[in-house]
Amino acid sequence: MARGSNLSRLGDFNQVVVLDAIRRAPAGISRVELVAETGLTAQTVSNIVRRLIHEEFVAETGRVKPTTRGKPRMQLRVRASARYAVGVHVDPATLTYVLIDLEGRVRQYVRRHTPDVGRPDQVVAAIAAEVERLIDAAGVDRGAILGLGVAAPGPIDIDEGVLIKPPQLAGWERVRLRADLHRATGLHVLMDKDVTAAATGERWALGGARHHFVFCYLGSGVGAGVVMDDVVLRGASNNIGEIGNIIVDPSAPDIGIGPAGSLASTCMPQALVVHAQRRGLITDEVSRSDFVALDDAFTRLCERAYAGEAECLRLLDEASAGLAAGLAVLVNALDVDRVVLGGPIWSRISSHVLAVLPDAIRPRVNARSTLAVEGSAVGEHVAAQGAAALILDHYLSPHPTVLVVE
Amino acid sequence: MARGSNLSRLGDFNQVVVLDAIRRAPAGISRVELVAETGLTAQTVSNIVRRLIHEEFVAETGRVKPTTRGKPRMQLRVRASARYAVGVHVDPATLTYVLIDLEGRVRQYVRRHTPDVGRPDQVVAAIAAEVERLIDAAGVDRGAILGLGVAAPGPIDIDEGVLIKPPQLAGWERVRLRADLHRATGLHVLMDKDVTAAATGERWALGGARHHFVFCYLGSGVGAGVVMDDVVLRGASNNIGEIGNIIVDPSAPDIGIGPAGSLASTCMPQALVVHAQRRGLITDEVSRSDFVALDDAFTRLCERAYAGEAECLRLLDEASAGLAAGLAVLVNALDVDRVVLGGPIWSRISSHVLAVLPDAIRPRVNARSTLAVEGSAVGEHVAAQGAAALILDHYLSPHPTVLVVE
Repeated sequence: MARGSNLSRLGDFNQVVVLDAIRRAPAGISRVELVAETGLTAQTVSNIVRRLIHEEFVAETGRVKPTTRGKPRMQLRVRASARYAVGVHVDPATLTYVLIDLEGRVRQYVRRHTPDVGRPDQVVAAIAAEVERLIDAAGVDRGAILGLGVAAPGPIDIDEGVLIKPPQLAGWERVRLRADLHRATGLHVLMDKDVTAAATGERWALGGARHHFVFCYLGSGVGAGVVMDDVVLRGASNNIGEIGNIIVDPSAPDIGIGPAGSLASTCMPQALVVHAQRRGLITDEVSRSDFVALDDAFTRLCERAYAGEAECLRLLDEASAGLAAGLAVLVNALDVDRVVLGGPIWSRISSHVLAVLPDAIRPRVNARSTLAVEGSAVGEHVAAQGAAALILDHYLSPHPTVLVVE
Repeated sequence: MARGSNLSRLGDFNQVVVLDAIRRAPAGISRVELVAETGLTAQTVSNIVRRLIHEEFVAETGRVKPTTRGKPRMQLRVRASARYAVGVHVDPATLTYVLIDLEGRVRQYVRRHTPDVGRPDQVVAAIAAEVERLIDAAGVDRGAILGLGVAAPGPIDIDEGVLIKPPQLAGWERVRLRADLHRATGLHVLMDKDVTAAATGERWALGGARHHFVFCYLGSGVGAGVVMDDVVLRGASNNIGEIGNIIVDPSAPDIGIGPAGSLASTCMPQALVVHAQRRGLITDEVSRSDFVALDDAFTRLCERAYAGEAECLRLLDEASAGLAAGLAVLVNALDVDRVVLGGPIWSRISSHVLAVLPDAIRPRVNARSTLAVEGSAVGEHVAAQGAAALILDHYLSPHPTVLVVE
């Protein structure tokens, strides 16, 4: 693993340590505090700060009187617009893009239907073109883009930058997405599993405290990211979070999507479309491999549910009950005190699910006095945000959590 | 949390750092290497080592020629017999005790039926008496015992040292086991959940490598400890590993133990006894709250299975199938590459379960090229060993993972 392989672009290790300490103090930090924080000498900190200011990574933002006695100290903050990162989240139905600045704020955000999902080369070309438009639209110098983070459905091989064989991407087998996107965009590319990127994005947004949560990812598939004691867990092969096969309704019939009564067969959009077809709520044919068409059919089902159609609403109730049973398994097994839901389909079902899920899940969780159940604080671009955050982390942290770079 | 509150017993923080570095080098370590390892000055290391030798924590074990050039260096090792820790594992049917030395080696090991499990005071008295016998039998000076680690069924409140209301310990409600055992033994007492202690014990024994594994704990209950990236996970309230409610057989009838078709209703000894009764294999009455009687009935069932009685063997097959389904849920959700089984009932079923479980679990786990399925490397005292290891960790590590001490 080429950890920190490109630190040299930003200078030496100590420089990265100082920049990271400044980044982590959004309210500003003084040179004296940096000395305390980093363990470097005052002279080293002073030299590095001069260089960071010269290179426009950092700006002085005025003097602040310290809480203890002493003269006012000049505060330092990162210049949010010094560097940027792009994130893209690849879902079989939806491509979600963000461009974030050095402080992690979203500068650009766009969603597109995934084009011709059976052809990886078409998807790569579409991503490259959209990333180009995103950078143009942001009016950002291309040299200020640190790289492109990609959140993709598992299983993935992070060392090779390969999508192994995502069950929902028919025809995608060992696609070298990282290398292909690097060639197509000219950018440095990092890859991560969608659920892990989503957990990373959510952790980024939550701030403070020692968090323990499960991020329930709802897109064309269902998965889970896990944060324990503030650490985003990845698993032995970086493929944490395969929860679709958990049995949530033992009496449910087999509909040909995952095992009978599984979370996948209860909550995935294509499963809800099949349930609707079996009950005569949808009479159109919808190909099970056309994820965009499935996504559209699912959107119409949700609209009908919210318009008051009882049978459609029942589908959402059943999906919520399934989620309650599946998430209870994870809460009990992992002892998290928070469940966060999000992902590409989340906004279409959130108001109904959040109205029923907390009461449905609590009786199922052992011995928990508190359990927060909430929608993502980031929103539908959470996995794209997390993927972009990985780029910042990789280039700007002394101890990046991930990954290999092309 | 009073982390490291008793470090002063062993001297200052640097002394603990040096001792820990020596402890982690079972083959021996030189003063020069200690300087490199700890970041302390040669003079500080030299002073601390002199003190540790004087206090008989550490011994010089002879000179070894370094691999690079230079003169032979005196090796230092901990004196295994300088201090000891006792561990007890409280299961409704069985009490398991170990006494380990400073290197973690078991010096004494004993198992007892749990007496009169409905009366916490009786259990506490029995533990105190047995701990006394254990120390006597080891011929160890009481002053050399660092403390008593307790592994107990959850849910527990680690901050208060309380067993909240373990479902299998009828009549135990908010029992202050830590304080009670401290009073009864005069020893410092730490408490941990059984599954976490078991994972700690197993991690201790595995050595080397970055481990990701689930420890499937099989006692009067079924639970799971989790080690991810070499860290023993604990959960938001230290109650990780409640897996009994996972549905593993959707078509199974309700037998009044856990939800119908759950892991608990398939694998727990009392569940197997009930299944056997329902099929006429056992005609005796066995009270569902008498865990010792249930344990004995379960032992006889296992003996009959191994003697070739087909219907009894089928019970073990069904339990193995349930374990495969339940563990597959955890392997998929957490992306571990190893499953370890152990706990108080493990030795009675291990040869049969290990013969069928690996083949039963592999088709159920997504996208895993390798998955090790194995019995505990420690054995039935793994949770007691882990509880005792917590004591060593608490008193001898600069950054103890746990806990509060009485």
